[in-house]
Amino acid sequence: MSEIKRREVLELLGKGAAALAASQLAGCLEPGADSAAVSNKASELDLELGIELPGEHIAMLVYPEMTLLDLIGPQTCFTALGMTIHLVWKTLEPIPTESGVTILPTNTFALCPTNLEVLFIPGSTLGATPMVRDEEVLRFVRSRGERAKLVTSVCTGSLILGAAGLLRGYKATSHWFTRELLPIVAAERVDARYVEDRNRITGAGVTSGIDFGLRIVDRLRGRDTAHLTQLMLEYAPEPPFNAGEPTTAPQNVVDTVHALFDLALLDSRIALEAASQNF
Amino acid sequence: MSEIKRREVLELLGKGAAALAASQLAGCLEPGADSAAVSNKASELDLELGIELPGEHIAMLVYPEMTLLDLIGPQTCFTALGMTIHLVWKTLEPIPTESGVTILPTNTFALCPTNLEVLFIPGSTLGATPMVRDEEVLRFVRSRGERAKLVTSVCTGSLILGAAGLLRGYKATSHWFTRELLPIVAAERVDARYVEDRNRITGAGVTSGIDFGLRIVDRLRGRDTAHLTQLMLEYAPEPPFNAGEPTTAPQNVVDTVHALFDLALLDSRIALEAASQNF
Repeated sequence: MSEIKRREVLELLGKGAAALAASQLAGCLEPGADSAAVSNKASELDLELGIELPGEHIAMLVYPEMTLLDLIGPQTCFTALGMTIHLVWKTLEPIPTESGVTILPTNTFALCPTNLEVLFIPGSTLGATPMVRDEEVLRFVRSRGERAKLVTSVCTGSLILGAAGLLRGYKATSHWFTRELLPIVAAERVDARYVEDRNRITGAGVTSGIDFGLRIVDRLRGRDTAHLTQLMLEYAPEPPFNAGEPTTAPQNVVDTVHALFDLALLDSRIALEAASQNF
Repeated sequence: MSEIKRREVLELLGKGAAALAASQLAGCLEPGADSAAVSNKASELDLELGIELPGEHIAMLVYPEMTLLDLIGPQTCFTALGMTIHLVWKTLEPIPTESGVTILPTNTFALCPTNLEVLFIPGSTLGATPMVRDEEVLRFVRSRGERAKLVTSVCTGSLILGAAGLLRGYKATSHWFTRELLPIVAAERVDARYVEDRNRITGAGVTSGIDFGLRIVDRLRGRDTAHLTQLMLEYAPEPPFNAGEPTTAPQNVVDTVHALFDLALLDSRIALEAASQNF
């Protein structure tokens, strides 16, 4: 794209004509460019289009090595809300997740609407810390989080919210193993399955996303819809063992988690300390 | 591909030289054909390559409109087994699932190994019945299920197993709403979160897949690995409501499910009755 074309787009953006700008941006692209090309071009130009769309929107961040179950538990519940759900990443390229399943994003940072009912951030065992270090990711999370009606996460997603400065002065939780990191980003650690503090709702590790998701359905659509969602998902859990928390798991199993991930925890701590210098 | 080439491939298959046949099939393709092209060509020729691969393998069926949470709960648990997990469909084209998330298969019916530790079938609200009616799907499920060490499902996946004739004379469960259909395929209905009968393990609706998945980890790798998996997933559920079963949900909510899906249930019944004529 020529410098003139780029200036044209930026001028349009300056006039607040966001939707028009998006269409003009598309006009600057090769003929026949599809939405992926538009998204990638906007991302390349580092354009924040600031699009407001009619209707109710949820943005769920997706990223490489994320824990897919963190996303799919809440996402399945959210379908009961009847809102448009955007799976958002820098580009529309396929995202390989931690368990080996690859998913497709449906929108990009550049084209994600700014008027959100819910912003949601999933966690990851090793993939969240690179997001804490990624300025482009933090800028997106901050820009949408500052306006979203609900700002939410499951598992180590709260570390990404925290690195974006969105949990300062809020009670929050995280995966049991990473909860001790929350004070670094000025959040108040709470040991609970999910924590609601004003419009921030954070869930504990992975499977908490189902409890968390049902609570959000209840908050946004009422008890009947929440009950219907729980019944359709036949959510009447019967864990075959009682090892879901460090207080109930055998000590040797807790020790194994520490042996495997203490170094990763230290790396997260370093990344969060660096991010907290920016706010 | 010419008729001669097709015969060459079939002759090789007749000699039981499955891996060689696969490579010959690839040789018949355009130069530079990738694995997707090989899979699609094999599928087009309706070749069942019968490949045995070294190592331990899990095949998880994926299909349009499947309930993704049915798959991702168990799949996340299965990663603890250290086996190769194949997400298998007719082709490698992206699969749109019920909740709106699109995933990528990793293997095809034609190239899926025949030596499986676990065959797994997820369910769907409206997408399972078309599978019950799909001869190509049932043939694949039957061929792998007859040899797999464990034959498993979650939710209405048991209807697909049943339509393939794999639950005849076995105790089984399904989503609470469809459990009454199990006798049509000569399975013995059991009202439980998951049911183990010899090498058949079937789960109830959607979220039962986590309980089911932990039980399979325990069965295949022992209690320590199951505990570690549960602790990593922080699986200590706290449902915010008690509406996960028709016996505990308010009657008006149960009535709503019937109003929405009784017609779909009838359609499933008709499809299962037709399938059961074939065995």
